[in-house]
Amino acid sequence: MDDIKKVVLAYSGGLDTSVILKWLQDTYQCEIVTFTADLGQGEELEPARAKAIKFGIKPENIFIDDLRDEFVRDFVLPMFRANTVYEGEYLLGTSIARPLIAKRQIEIARMTGANAVSHGATGKGNDQVRFELGYYALEPGIKVIAPWREWDLLSREKLLAYAEKHEIPVEMKHKQGGAPYSMDANLLHISFEGRHLENPNAVAEESMWRWTVSPENAPDQAEFIDIEFSKGDPVAINGVALGPKEMLAQLNTLGGKHGIGRLDLVENRFVGMKSRGCYETPGGTILLKAHRGIESITLDREVAHLKDDLMPRYASLIYNGYWWAPERIALQTLIDHTQLMVNGFVRLKLYKGSVSVVSRDSVNTLFDMNIATFDDDGGAYNQADAGGFIKLNALRMRIAEIARRKRLK
Amino acid sequence: MDDIKKVVLAYSGGLDTSVILKWLQDTYQCEIVTFTADLGQGEELEPARAKAIKFGIKPENIFIDDLRDEFVRDFVLPMFRANTVYEGEYLLGTSIARPLIAKRQIEIARMTGANAVSHGATGKGNDQVRFELGYYALEPGIKVIAPWREWDLLSREKLLAYAEKHEIPVEMKHKQGGAPYSMDANLLHISFEGRHLENPNAVAEESMWRWTVSPENAPDQAEFIDIEFSKGDPVAINGVALGPKEMLAQLNTLGGKHGIGRLDLVENRFVGMKSRGCYETPGGTILLKAHRGIESITLDREVAHLKDDLMPRYASLIYNGYWWAPERIALQTLIDHTQLMVNGFVRLKLYKGSVSVVSRDSVNTLFDMNIATFDDDGGAYNQADAGGFIKLNALRMRIAEIARRKRLK
Amino acid sequence: MDDIKKVVLAYSGGLDTSVILKWLQDTYQCEIVTFTADLGQGEELEPARAKAIKFGIKPENIFIDDLRDEFVRDFVLPMFRANTVYEGEYLLGTSIARPLIAKRQIEIARMTGANAVSHGATGKGNDQVRFELGYYALEPGIKVIAPWREWDLLSREKLLAYAEKHEIPVEMKHKQGGAPYSMDANLLHISFEGRHLENPNAVAEESMWRWTVSPENAPDQAEFIDIEFSKGDPVAINGVALGPKEMLAQLNTLGGKHGIGRLDLVENRFVGMKSRGCYETPGGTILLKAHRGIESITLDREVAHLKDDLMPRYASLIYNGYWWAPERIALQTLIDHTQLMVNGFVRLKLYKGSVSVVSRDSVNTLFDMNIATFDDDGGAYNQADAGGFIKLNALRMRIAEIARRKRLK
Amino acid sequence: MDDIKKVVLAYSGGLDTSVILKWLQDTYQCEIVTFTADLGQGEELEPARAKAIKFGIKPENIFIDDLRDEFVRDFVLPMFRANTVYEGEYLLGTSIARPLIAKRQIEIARMTGANAVSHGATGKGNDQVRFELGYYALEPGIKVIAPWREWDLLSREKLLAYAEKHEIPVEMKHKQGGAPYSMDANLLHISFEGRHLENPNAVAEESMWRWTVSPENAPDQAEFIDIEFSKGDPVAINGVALGPKEMLAQLNTLGGKHGIGRLDLVENRFVGMKSRGCYETPGGTILLKAHRGIESITLDREVAHLKDDLMPRYASLIYNGYWWAPERIALQTLIDHTQLMVNGFVRLKLYKGSVSVVSRDSVNTLFDMNIATFDDDGGAYNQADAGGFIKLNALRMRIAEIARRKRLK
Repeated sequence: MDDIKKVVLAYSGGLDTSVILKWLQDTYQCEIVTFTADLGQGEELEPARAKAIKFGIKPENIFIDDLRDEFVRDFVLPMFRANTVYEGEYLLGTSIARPLIAKRQIEIARMTGANAVSHGATGKGNDQVRFELGYYALEPGIKVIAPWREWDLLSREKLLAYAEKHEIPVEMKHKQGGAPYSMDANLLHISFEGRHLENPNAVAEESMWRWTVSPENAPDQAEFIDIEFSKGDPVAINGVALGPKEMLAQLNTLGGKHGIGRLDLVENRFVGMKSRGCYETPGGTILLKAHRGIESITLDREVAHLKDDLMPRYASLIYNGYWWAPERIALQTLIDHTQLMVNGFVRLKLYKGSVSVVSRDSVNTLFDMNIATFDDDGGAYNQADAGGFIKLNALRMRIAEIARRKRLK
Repeated sequence: MDDIKKVVLAYSGGLDTSVILKWLQDTYQCEIVTFTADLGQGEELEPARAKAIKFGIKPENIFIDDLRDEFVRDFVLPMFRANTVYEGEYLLGTSIARPLIAKRQIEIARMTGANAVSHGATGKGNDQVRFELGYYALEPGIKVIAPWREWDLLSREKLLAYAEKHEIPVEMKHKQGGAPYSMDANLLHISFEGRHLENPNAVAEESMWRWTVSPENAPDQAEFIDIEFSKGDPVAINGVALGPKEMLAQLNTLGGKHGIGRLDLVENRFVGMKSRGCYETPGGTILLKAHRGIESITLDREVAHLKDDLMPRYASLIYNGYWWAPERIALQTLIDHTQLMVNGFVRLKLYKGSVSVVSRDSVNTLFDMNIATFDDDGGAYNQADAGGFIKLNALRMRIAEIARRKRLK
Repeated sequence: MDDIKKVVLAYSGGLDTSVILKWLQDTYQCEIVTFTADLGQGEELEPARAKAIKFGIKPENIFIDDLRDEFVRDFVLPMFRANTVYEGEYLLGTSIARPLIAKRQIEIARMTGANAVSHGATGKGNDQVRFELGYYALEPGIKVIAPWREWDLLSREKLLAYAEKHEIPVEMKHKQGGAPYSMDANLLHISFEGRHLENPNAVAEESMWRWTVSPENAPDQAEFIDIEFSKGDPVAINGVALGPKEMLAQLNTLGGKHGIGRLDLVENRFVGMKSRGCYETPGGTILLKAHRGIESITLDREVAHLKDDLMPRYASLIYNGYWWAPERIALQTLIDHTQLMVNGFVRLKLYKGSVSVVSRDSVNTLFDMNIATFDDDGGAYNQADAGGFIKLNALRMRIAEIARRKRLK
Repeated sequence: MDDIKKVVLAYSGGLDTSVILKWLQDTYQCEIVTFTADLGQGEELEPARAKAIKFGIKPENIFIDDLRDEFVRDFVLPMFRANTVYEGEYLLGTSIARPLIAKRQIEIARMTGANAVSHGATGKGNDQVRFELGYYALEPGIKVIAPWREWDLLSREKLLAYAEKHEIPVEMKHKQGGAPYSMDANLLHISFEGRHLENPNAVAEESMWRWTVSPENAPDQAEFIDIEFSKGDPVAINGVALGPKEMLAQLNTLGGKHGIGRLDLVENRFVGMKSRGCYETPGGTILLKAHRGIESITLDREVAHLKDDLMPRYASLIYNGYWWAPERIALQTLIDHTQLMVNGFVRLKLYKGSVSVVSRDSVNTLFDMNIATFDDDGGAYNQADAGGFIKLNALRMRIAEIARRKRLK
């Protein structure tokens, strides 16, 4: 253990990472650097500084960074260019934040001369994998400390006892039976796991949801919005240009207001077990629908199908923590290339939990009304061509059936 | 042309296929067999018989068949086992009906000694392909007459003139500016194309929709239902066992009542153009969500991912008309094999246009609460294993980064 | 037909395209531009000029272009970056030449103000598709004349009669029973089809092969060569730098000398039939082996697997004529991106029909001897990690089996 | 450790597994069951019995099983139905044997009441994964002892010292610098790893190869053989019916005689490193070529392409040890389904390291000479159909180019 000199800890300021901070100090007798990121989780970060100082962390070892723009611009939006959905449902709100945290932790390790990093993810989940694959990919010699896999504080009771013993302040909610759920939030989503969600047959409580009103409490009047896209990314709502983080925040506000983006799911973790999660992704749910809408008139059919064929693989890469892997980057190269002409406008209806596309338009449209029309098209399309098209597409099946019948004779 | 002796026409009794019937008689001077299928489109079929007789069709050459159970059991449900969606959105309601019509037409051709078949699909659309690939696959020597690709009645005006000239009755709606949309319906869906939908930027009129109330007019109270699955197929709602067609009809009623299953889409046709379609698939939309729900606890992760990877290809096969092709059958073999353990219950919430899974349960569940729990699991899962798991998954990236740095030195 | 003003004909100077030239003049009464390309087929092209002049083609309408460097650099090498093989065997020698001919024909049409193009490919094969998809993609309004699909000269006898009648010179080989095979050649390969190859059970005659000695007649001594790669492309043999066309020519010489690159295959054409072809691809066969060799030490595993997964699709695109399609270009973007580090040397053994890799080396190697060694690695790799790796990879199967046993109780 | 009662050891009788046997006895103080399998590795197995008895193993705890027929019938042949090749080259000779050994070990554990299994694979390789994924999948509660990951005998010197100390007989070859390579053999192949192969730039010594003569020393006369297939499996050579193990043995003899099936490869291991292996797979190399040959005339194009698209995934599953996983079984269901019509004969030429198909025939042929012919086909194929086929296949590209030009105006 004596080779751990300095550790960069991903530190939220909450109970778990505070216990980890203390445990690292005691166990490794090393200097600690705390890193707290604003990814839009909606919590004040300055209290984390005060807490860190209480633990004796030097001011120059306390990093509190606003990563919201980078998060949306370099992680969320590239992912949405692929219409990424894991297992048909999950918009990867937690998965997509981890590689950025890992990257920043490594940057801070280099700046501060730390030779180790640490995080508060458990040994059962995906997040440990996402963090650590990022660490190792970016800094192959880094040492990783994952306290949940090392210590013996495996139950909430033991954790609280440790906190009490070491005078780590514990919020009321933790004392009274513990936080209701294990939650994670950033500008893309908030997630809920654990507690009575651990039974997939138990219905989630209405009180659990945080970011969206229930559809029942959403406005009785539908709202229509226009989203403008440029190279596959949303750039304006209702004609008002917005930067990456403002865009996603605004979509969250709209989705939350209309009860859009709730999801209750049993998913398959990379470590091999099924787990049940509930997610609120209001802005992302709108964005996915809108992006498919603008692609529907600007992307070539076979390019769109190629993207659809590759999407589950790309989604699994992100879910499993391979953002920094060369195969993810190779796929991104293809995906980004396809987006050059994905420009235009999509009009959406938001109403009581649903989002739907009602119209779309683009200077790059590939929709040709002259050809598509049911009316006389003046020769733009020669219907007789279809006869030969079908005949040759059927040829192999006809030959096979003829051969089959010959054998039966 | 003298080699056309007898033609089996897919005959709805409507204006278009009535004109075709007359045109076939005049052009080919041949005997006609009419075939009218009940696929749950919700129209009376007996009037088709009376009309056929007026055209001089012999009673023994008039076939009116109720194919609803076969349609749902052998076509719709196998397709839903794959969670099939075309281009991320379309549930293939029209596509899946065509192979059955083609199959039945060929059966009738064999029974009646006909050597040709005919249909009323245009030369621009997918349906001609779906019909004719079916015909050729099942009866490779069959002759196919596609009047829309042969005649010169390419505008609605010419068609009406022809009808008038030949005393074919024309309903009022056709006279007053034509039917509002080109529609197709069966137990799975109703579709709308053409007219002002031909501009993808034009919003569909509320009055267009037929099978679903608008979400705004749906009940203010959510409804919860339980669907039971057996081998991947729905078999009961709220504990009441239902046969295939009753099941889908019941789901349609529920979906329609709650405004569920509307879709407004620009899609890519097999013949190479983009087209805009609106669809109502109330029961199918519920079924897709429910099926994913039951699979989420009963399917192995990698089997589920394999299915997800293959799904777009399977969807394209059905969309393009390759139901009877050997590669569709090969994929179905795999898909059906995966469904043996897809048994259990899914509870759904239906509310103003949305359907969501709220719980799921199965005797075949692969969800292991002991392992998934955030609490102490008593050793069911050894968290330390994750360290090695991550280290080896990261190894190739670490080696690559180390090699890169060596080169830079 | 009066809208055909000027036609650019892909003209080899041989019998077929000479008959076509005459037939176009007679049938369309239009000006003809002849285009003859040197793709390395090994025939003199100047005779084509003399023949064209005899038909009355204006000198400024005769184009004879050396496209060999462009062919190898922009078509052959990009394709080999993907290790492209169609149906497990075919190296696409004909397929890859067609898009370049189509492109050049369209360029000449623009230069000469022609509004139509024509080629000598039959209506049964793939080449018509490859030519015409290229024409239409690059010049969507172009008119295409495919004489074999239009005229009635469908047998060799009729063709010869037409030639005789119009005083088109016929070489002796055509008179005496016709050319032995339908052949196509360029720097990448020579192909043989037709005649007694039409029976897939008939063994090809030894006398058919042109570019390679039979393995039996190849040198009794193996030859070893070193190929250097840069960004996935071969750039030097045995230390001698070579440009694209010289590289492929040199590999052809080496392969031909050692009897390498013969293939006898039944393949599936895009138009729906099976056909039998024999191919000699001496240089390409060596190149494929060498390229896999250099990739084996320079490509990340998952990137290599991604390429392998996409390769059959990419191969089909080229085989089917979609070189100019956006999905081919999107895939190429990914493929080219993966080749940035594919640098180094491969040593090959050439011997009597076989080529094999015997060693490989690269500054970009990802092979880590310290880790790979069977000897003590001094801690570079912690074998204990594998335990956790396996445990978690097995977890889903263990859970499933435990669940299965519980049900049986 | 006290929970290890009885261990089934995969025991070859060689030095490594003998040391393991002793080490297990000493370390776990438990009863040992030895299991020695005949997979066609070509070594006598009875000496293993004598050695085991020397270690005090009870006679009823010594299992020596001839698994050759099961190996070929249930593992090798199903794999070859998919034309399985890993990373474009490797025929998976080691990979495919491991699941059978694992299965048999578990069966023996059940029979003998053992609660643990053990093997001699190192912590760096793929074999540990293949063994253990099999164990866990079939018997989820089994305990696994992998000595190489546990003990400290990590160098050959330490191993020899341990053997000497415990009076385990050491063959001369081990003393004199160790066995030249790490080898593995079964009816499908023999593999070589380690030693000077660890440098991928070092050429393998000719003396290394065991099963094949060098091409240079192969007969100067080519040999032609006929292989008959039934449902995708080889059933006769030159008209002589052969059972599974005799078939593969005979193909090995033929291939070995003609120098066929040598491979020198750098491959990517599942545990994350690259490694270099040399393989001799004489019979398998012939079989792969022959199987592709018979499929070329009996498989539908799209079924063949589906198989080709899935093959790399299937190969990775086997390479990585997932034979017993549900996704491998699902894929096998599809693969086996496609083989029902893969019947017929393939004629092959074997000559100095090469195998090539020279003809093929089948009652299930889909090759239609009437349609394929270059001569007049009497109307079997209407060449004019190709015009429409191409036009519609080009449509999306034409629309895109027209749209692009409009934008530029």
